[in-house]
Amino acid sequence: MTAPLGEFDLIARFFAPMAAPGALGLTDDAATMTPPAGHDLVLTKDALISGVHFFADDPPDTIARKALRVNLSDLAAKGARPLGFLLGLGLPDWARGAEWLAEFARGLRADAAAFGCPLFGGDTVKSSGQLMLSVTAIGAVPTGRMVRRGGGKPGNFLYVSGTIGDGALGLHQWMCQQSGEAYDAFLAGRYLLPQPRMALAPALLAHAHAAMDVSDGLIGDAEKMAATSGCGLEMRLGDVPLSSEANSLIAGNSELFIRAMTGGDDYEILCAVAQPEAAAFEAAAKNAGVAVTRIGELTGDQKTQIFGLNGQLINIKNGSYRHF
Amino acid sequence: MTAPLGEFDLIARFFAPMAAPGALGLTDDAATMTPPAGHDLVLTKDALISGVHFFADDPPDTIARKALRVNLSDLAAKGARPLGFLLGLGLPDWARGAEWLAEFARGLRADAAAFGCPLFGGDTVKSSGQLMLSVTAIGAVPTGRMVRRGGGKPGNFLYVSGTIGDGALGLHQWMCQQSGEAYDAFLAGRYLLPQPRMALAPALLAHAHAAMDVSDGLIGDAEKMAATSGCGLEMRLGDVPLSSEANSLIAGNSELFIRAMTGGDDYEILCAVAQPEAAAFEAAAKNAGVAVTRIGELTGDQKTQIFGLNGQLINIKNGSYRHF
Repeated sequence: MTAPLGEFDLIARFFAPMAAPGALGLTDDAATMTPPAGHDLVLTKDALISGVHFFADDPPDTIARKALRVNLSDLAAKGARPLGFLLGLGLPDWARGAEWLAEFARGLRADAAAFGCPLFGGDTVKSSGQLMLSVTAIGAVPTGRMVRRGGGKPGNFLYVSGTIGDGALGLHQWMCQQSGEAYDAFLAGRYLLPQPRMALAPALLAHAHAAMDVSDGLIGDAEKMAATSGCGLEMRLGDVPLSSEANSLIAGNSELFIRAMTGGDDYEILCAVAQPEAAAFEAAAKNAGVAVTRIGELTGDQKTQIFGLNGQLINIKNGSYRHF
Repeated sequence: MTAPLGEFDLIARFFAPMAAPGALGLTDDAATMTPPAGHDLVLTKDALISGVHFFADDPPDTIARKALRVNLSDLAAKGARPLGFLLGLGLPDWARGAEWLAEFARGLRADAAAFGCPLFGGDTVKSSGQLMLSVTAIGAVPTGRMVRRGGGKPGNFLYVSGTIGDGALGLHQWMCQQSGEAYDAFLAGRYLLPQPRMALAPALLAHAHAAMDVSDGLIGDAEKMAATSGCGLEMRLGDVPLSSEANSLIAGNSELFIRAMTGGDDYEILCAVAQPEAAAFEAAAKNAGVAVTRIGELTGDQKTQIFGLNGQLINIKNGSYRHF
């Protein structure tokens, strides 16, 4: 292990290269940003901690990229495009060597560039225990247009992007049960490195009444969206899109299937679209290259009705991951 | 100790009451904010961790208020007025009871209201070790006008607000050597609860070429400002303002005096003002009710010259607190 770096070396070597122009090379106490005219800011913060959101020995570049991407996923769900981010870091000894930090910064810089989301500032403190990352992401939507979680109406179709359950199943494979099958690498990759659906943001802005990213489990997150919208919910699990890799792993095991439906770490987008807009939304998503699948509806009562693979009503006790 | 609260109870009970209107009662994945027209945003983040920036058994309300205030201090130094903040929290067991959290939230809410800086969002994760707070504060300045650290010019007068060293000496008293003297409570209070100089922001905007808040020790911070401005520095320690309480504690002890000049936790403002603007700056500060004192100049060479109490040149090895 290489010697720990000082705070200022760390900033100059690793973080200054990904700084936004308004961040003044991270040599100031604050950054300046001219917000785009005619737009609202969209502000979000997700914190991640080792042992909960990732493992201490996960590859450092994927830890960094995941921390940024889960925040970008929130921006995408709100219809926003990214403007930049700030990073709070609590670094334990094992994450203060130049080698670990170089990998961490390499991943972060690659994603900051790929997603057009430069670094506006941050702060690094020494932690005696876990590695903690606290990312604030800032995005923009046309004024008054942020897509809310609570804007759904009875009768709205529910759509979900991509495939569900890969992250939760990938965590399972990554942790303890790697089978050596071909699907392992795909699923573990989906856990380690979510794909925020930035390309779907314009379609959401144009057509969705409500949206959120699926991060704590599809069923629980859908219940949150319905409740915040003052609606009930019908969802057909047989319609929920699964990757062929997830299907191979599940192979009829109902416990694994429920884990996929409730397990979190999807970072796909769930949205509610008025029926007359459905065709236009589907076309816009297709244009954007993002698969979307209709999985249910919002309803006028306050009930959650989940239909299982055989069409029967089922009772899910814990629809989502709970942090505490 | 009361039972630990769930994440959603915690948000609804303690954080929703201080949420900005655009934060939608903290029931969404993100908040929305319409930035003030004709303004730039000023973005800053300071992270604090127990055992480094505060003690685990400090009063919970002062931990919360200090975390917000050190960020507000950065906004003030940049000439900005606050718009709001986001909070990342890593909570260990001892900080997850309703009683501790109620006190923490009470302090945070009081300061959010007092400083006109509402909560826009955040995220809470369970920490197995230290308490970590990561605050992102967002402020506004007229477009293009953020007061930078690096804008100083040779010949600029250096000013500092308030009194220096109280925080570092207060930490000393708070930690281990409370003497029972009258000055203890004042100095400990200055350590526990900094006073961000928001009222000075308009005077800085109007008259300062460079500014920063003094958080890591006056001498070291002044060296940083001079270096970022491409200047050298002359400072007369005999001119640095001390509170009567700091003077009583120091009582001629040169080690304590140097601790006051280098120790950090001041959260006063250091700024560089062109000589022809000096009278107007002093008048504006007086109008704002903030004491400012001239303590030196920026120079055209790259040297740091610190003059001690007897006017002699002295050599300070460590001008500031280093985090690692």
